[in-house]
Amino acid sequence: MDALDQTTDIDALMHDIGRRARAAGRVLGTAPTEAKNRALTAAAAALRAQAEAIKAANAQDMAAGEAKGLSKAMLDRLLLNDARIKAMAKGLEDVAALPDPVGTVLADWDRPNGLRIARVRVPLGVIGVIYESRPNVTADAAALCLKAGNAVILRGGSESFHSSHAILAAVHAGLAEAGLPADACQMIPTTDRAAVGAMLRLSDFIDVIVPRGGKSLIERVTAESRVPLFKHLEGICHTYIHAAADPGKARAITVNAKMRRTGICGATETVLVDRAVAAAMVPALVEDLTAVGCAVRGCAETQALDARVQPATDADWDTEYLDAIVSMKVVEGLDEAIAHIAAHGSDHTDAILTEDPAAAETFLNAVDSAIVMVNASTQFADGGEFGMGAEIGIATGKLHARGPVGVEQLTSFKYQVRGSGQTRP
Amino acid sequence: MDALDQTTDIDALMHDIGRRARAAGRVLGTAPTEAKNRALTAAAAALRAQAEAIKAANAQDMAAGEAKGLSKAMLDRLLLNDARIKAMAKGLEDVAALPDPVGTVLADWDRPNGLRIARVRVPLGVIGVIYESRPNVTADAAALCLKAGNAVILRGGSESFHSSHAILAAVHAGLAEAGLPADACQMIPTTDRAAVGAMLRLSDFIDVIVPRGGKSLIERVTAESRVPLFKHLEGICHTYIHAAADPGKARAITVNAKMRRTGICGATETVLVDRAVAAAMVPALVEDLTAVGCAVRGCAETQALDARVQPATDADWDTEYLDAIVSMKVVEGLDEAIAHIAAHGSDHTDAILTEDPAAAETFLNAVDSAIVMVNASTQFADGGEFGMGAEIGIATGKLHARGPVGVEQLTSFKYQVRGSGQTRP
Repeated sequence: MDALDQTTDIDALMHDIGRRARAAGRVLGTAPTEAKNRALTAAAAALRAQAEAIKAANAQDMAAGEAKGLSKAMLDRLLLNDARIKAMAKGLEDVAALPDPVGTVLADWDRPNGLRIARVRVPLGVIGVIYESRPNVTADAAALCLKAGNAVILRGGSESFHSSHAILAAVHAGLAEAGLPADACQMIPTTDRAAVGAMLRLSDFIDVIVPRGGKSLIERVTAESRVPLFKHLEGICHTYIHAAADPGKARAITVNAKMRRTGICGATETVLVDRAVAAAMVPALVEDLTAVGCAVRGCAETQALDARVQPATDADWDTEYLDAIVSMKVVEGLDEAIAHIAAHGSDHTDAILTEDPAAAETFLNAVDSAIVMVNASTQFADGGEFGMGAEIGIATGKLHARGPVGVEQLTSFKYQVRGSGQTRP
Repeated sequence: MDALDQTTDIDALMHDIGRRARAAGRVLGTAPTEAKNRALTAAAAALRAQAEAIKAANAQDMAAGEAKGLSKAMLDRLLLNDARIKAMAKGLEDVAALPDPVGTVLADWDRPNGLRIARVRVPLGVIGVIYESRPNVTADAAALCLKAGNAVILRGGSESFHSSHAILAAVHAGLAEAGLPADACQMIPTTDRAAVGAMLRLSDFIDVIVPRGGKSLIERVTAESRVPLFKHLEGICHTYIHAAADPGKARAITVNAKMRRTGICGATETVLVDRAVAAAMVPALVEDLTAVGCAVRGCAETQALDARVQPATDADWDTEYLDAIVSMKVVEGLDEAIAHIAAHGSDHTDAILTEDPAAAETFLNAVDSAIVMVNASTQFADGGEFGMGAEIGIATGKLHARGPVGVEQLTSFKYQVRGSGQTRP
């Protein structure tokens, strides 16, 4: 690591990594399902077998992190113990058990001239993944990319450098066992931040980059990248309590949507309450939320309805708290709720709570977010909960991947045309 | 136009256009199929009714083009006559007759907890189209975008400025007839090239840009754009004559693939011939191609087999001639053909001619192009020929759209989740 840290020509290093990834991607792209699955299950076995080495590498990172004064939350994300290593191994096996998306015929049809046309799933090619302190992303991201037939270039956080490399060693053991190239899963061997910049310019060799991390990382990547991104900047998710909401369901869903886990992108940040039911619902919701330790910041109407509501500023409607704080606003009705979400949402996940099917359908169609829900907690915004298997992230853009990014979203397609001598008139 | 040409604040102009497009896109996104179709058929009627005005506007452009010394080919692309106006109108009606992609359920499934999840097609939002001299792109692009529920911002070539605006007037008449906003189809009202730069930075308001034009336009757009692109830079298409090719089919397909129309992106530019059949095939192919006026530039082996073959330089393997010239190379077999295409192709369309099904399948899987063909002319690379209806272009990227870009490729999707009170454990 020290020698590599001194690499002076980062661009040359990254170019070489990219070139090797592209070559490995060509091998992975036509690798049989059995070989990919064998690599994944062998990597899982290697993770378990190498648990002591992984924990030793992690201890180095933990010691450096403590010396650097990392927060308790960051140290917890960094920590690897036996349970977490077992969970990573199980994750690899779960991905092995998913159906192989590559080669799936998405559509096929015959033309009057006898040409047979098929739209067939193929890998994207090379995926870049940029992440922060959680070392387990190394295994998760590698597994999803490999299963979809892609080579992957990983750029982990400097805090988890040794841990991530120890996990990478297990992945490489799996690839070797299956006769697949080690270059299919590379990690950038330097913590120099310039490597990220070079990676973001590597559009000849990387087809898409998935940035995983806080807002400042996503903002930097978005501003600089010449490579397309699957990403979400933030999750300002809304739960809208419609006039025809069932009060009991609304209370249970709202508390769950906000408080089940406050730090995830699918957590509700703003509750919109229909004026018709505000007098009853606002005090009930404030009661439920404050009972579990959530602060409520609201508009003037909500403040008038419950003294525990603190005043919200304009900035609150555009804030992703990721904390035990919620903003609450009374709206005139469906149209104002939809307009508020259009103005302040982040195209991630938004829900309406209502027993009125027409209102539900209007909301589902008019709200332009990756995930729109009726009578459910926004915390269900998750590839696993959707039944898609593991996910590498959630995308809020409209191109290619939207919502949970799983194995299928890491593929492209091509057209295969089978003829018998046709020429075009 | 003159007043608008003097617009000093291009960025403000473009920002306003983008903002209005976004607002109109929200209306289009939930517009009923009947309204969109009515707009298209009414626009077709308006094109026919306003043919004299369109021809008068076109005469202005033609006169200016002649004075500027445009080439005969460019003037021909610019010309609008009754037949071409009728063809444009027919094109609008053809798009009206296509199924509406918006609202299509792409997949749906139930979760064990009772959540019902559906993946539903939605419009992309706002499409930008940048094109050169052909004014008919105005109608074609507007029609495809509107059908898919998108607002569109058009940037036509300066040569076709008056013609394109006359066509736009007919599109606006159609939108008005259907009660849809005129801002759903806007054309940049200045020929200032700075407007293109401003458009390429408008990532808040434009979801994807489709550049249609020559290599220099595509290169500029690719270098500058902050908005994702559906594009192809060039079409260096290959026809590979495998050892097991049927000689008669191979000769007919090769001539068609190269010479049917030499100026389209699906025209074959390089013919690869298997060594096993080169002695017989090369002279036959050279005979057929030269008979229809095609010059052949080849490797040393092809030159040795036929004196009419001129020497190819290294640059020839990377050249899109778009002309009656072809490059020809003898290869050892399937692997060398696949490697040559990987090294020199442009990911557009490549074909193998063979009666050996195993060789065909290997080629179909290993060649990493948007369209791969067996025993058919590469000139079939076209949305219409694929049965997809009209196309706005062909994309060679792997994200979202690949191959012909038709109505479906101009959509995204969202997840609609219908619950009955579920909270996440």
